[in-house]
Amino acid sequence: MAATPWYFVAVLLTILTSSQGILTTLSQSNGGYKYDYATVPFLAEVFKLIVSGLFLWREMRTSSSTTSRITTDWKSVRLFVIPSLIYLIHNNVQFATLTYVDTSTYQIMGNLKIVTTGILFRLFLKRKLSKLQWMAIGLLAVGTTTSQVKGCGEASCDSLFTAPIQGYLLGILSAGLSALAGIYTEFLMKRNNDTLYWQNLQLYTFGSLFNVARLIADDFRHGFEKGPWWQRIFDGYSITTWMVVLNLGSTGLLVSWLMKYADNIVKVYSTSMAMLLTMVASIYLFSFKPTLQLFLGIVICIMSLHMYFAPPHTLVDLPVTNEAHAKTLKQVVVEEKTDS
Amino acid sequence: MAATPWYFVAVLLTILTSSQGILTTLSQSNGGYKYDYATVPFLAEVFKLIVSGLFLWREMRTSSSTTSRITTDWKSVRLFVIPSLIYLIHNNVQFATLTYVDTSTYQIMGNLKIVTTGILFRLFLKRKLSKLQWMAIGLLAVGTTTSQVKGCGEASCDSLFTAPIQGYLLGILSAGLSALAGIYTEFLMKRNNDTLYWQNLQLYTFGSLFNVARLIADDFRHGFEKGPWWQRIFDGYSITTWMVVLNLGSTGLLVSWLMKYADNIVKVYSTSMAMLLTMVASIYLFSFKPTLQLFLGIVICIMSLHMYFAPPHTLVDLPVTNEAHAKTLKQVVVEEKTDS
Repeated sequence: MAATPWYFVAVLLTILTSSQGILTTLSQSNGGYKYDYATVPFLAEVFKLIVSGLFLWREMRTSSSTTSRITTDWKSVRLFVIPSLIYLIHNNVQFATLTYVDTSTYQIMGNLKIVTTGILFRLFLKRKLSKLQWMAIGLLAVGTTTSQVKGCGEASCDSLFTAPIQGYLLGILSAGLSALAGIYTEFLMKRNNDTLYWQNLQLYTFGSLFNVARLIADDFRHGFEKGPWWQRIFDGYSITTWMVVLNLGSTGLLVSWLMKYADNIVKVYSTSMAMLLTMVASIYLFSFKPTLQLFLGIVICIMSLHMYFAPPHTLVDLPVTNEAHAKTLKQVVVEEKTDS
Repeated sequence: MAATPWYFVAVLLTILTSSQGILTTLSQSNGGYKYDYATVPFLAEVFKLIVSGLFLWREMRTSSSTTSRITTDWKSVRLFVIPSLIYLIHNNVQFATLTYVDTSTYQIMGNLKIVTTGILFRLFLKRKLSKLQWMAIGLLAVGTTTSQVKGCGEASCDSLFTAPIQGYLLGILSAGLSALAGIYTEFLMKRNNDTLYWQNLQLYTFGSLFNVARLIADDFRHGFEKGPWWQRIFDGYSITTWMVVLNLGSTGLLVSWLMKYADNIVKVYSTSMAMLLTMVASIYLFSFKPTLQLFLGIVICIMSLHMYFAPPHTLVDLPVTNEAHAKTLKQVVVEEKTDS
């Protein structure tokens, strides 16, 4: 599985992430959820845990046990709690941010995550990027933001800086924490040669525990009025809800793979492209109006993708003239003649 | 004057082009013009003609007459009528386009000129651009368009393709003609070593004639109800109107200089940046609302500028590590010691 090309996994992640938004919309009835949405991430964690467990079991059975690719030292295991802890803090910061800014502004600020990921990628993982790659990352954030511009006219207007300053600071903190979780996970996955499934098993065990804790906290917060979490867990679930769970679990597994065999920037491109793909799909599925800003955003993001991943010389070299090309061909012919 | 660095002229052009929009707005009273706006381009042509004549006279007096830098052959002179002819056709196409699309859509389509200029630059002037420079030109068009996005909500909505197809085809034709005029002028200015002022003199003589013809045509169209053109010419002119004339004339002279000593792409960057500068200035001068899309457009255009003009190796090279840098420094020290 490590031999799978990363761009194949990235494309698959883009498609599944895009389906996630569409499936979630389809799982609603009359504009609301019939099921408790908080149970979805928990079940997705459990799904990932089971899949990783099965894969690990299969690998342990077939491969020789001499290659020590499992570190069970507590000093190592405990590191896997950190991503869950960061996500817990992130959720609370997210909640606080939304008390200061509206969801539209929050969504726009979410694109900052692309830039903060680039910065932490450089600072913590010490990965070097060319100026062009930095510009590409900046453009990706600009492109996704452009596609979300609402413009003026309605009650809300995309005017700059109308919310309290705390809202923007918390938005930046939120973007930083979100990036940190991704960068830390990449660090965890690459720090040793442990098999991916064992790393996943640790990650998702803590993930499941934190999700249960969250469900229990919800129970206490709402005074058990909807019953304890284990009763709410499959309540109102439809086939589509189960597809949402399986889809979320699968994207998680793909992200995990990318963290080990590719990197955070690849993941950021995947999820950004997925956002645009969802918007395009919504034009057909939910009769959304195609906007100029969506078209512009797509053009910007595709250029950014090209700038980041294309071999640099193909970007900066001037095209060969026909004469020069003809000359090269002649030389080849001459050389071939000399050879024979 | 040929020794002036092109970027200095480009920056000056940006500032003057930007002032043009602001001065034109300031020259209005109660939302309308007290003077006949059609007289402004005519007077600007005459201003350019006089300035070029004076410069030519000065140059002819000081330089030796042996260097033949003036081609008076009719076969050469007649070529200078072509830009005026293209502009005449362009004006009519522009008029026809506006019968199909609203001014907002027309303005958005105007950004196509950036791309058509790039294409004609390649096709007619045979200038080679790297992939990155092509992307930069595309991004410049995307950036200027982004800054103009109105969004949805009002009566008008930036939805895609709601006007009749003829409107879009005429808009593309208009962008092509506008680019052609620029590219042809560059060809004219660079085809021989004639002094710039002589070339200008020919260009602006035809320009003045075509502008007079236009004023006369207007007279006949309106049945002389506002009197003949020579009576309308200074009617209602204020100091600001004269500044509009001088400013328009000066930008024309700078564009001419750029066509000879730089190129159309430099001109396109200047005028695009000027458009953004005008929008930023309008926030302060006319209390325009700063929008998210203006901010995004500026970021995109600045990145595009950098992509087009920065030396390619500074863009694609990976930053040198501190150790490598230290090593290079050591080598320099060692070499210096060896030298002495």
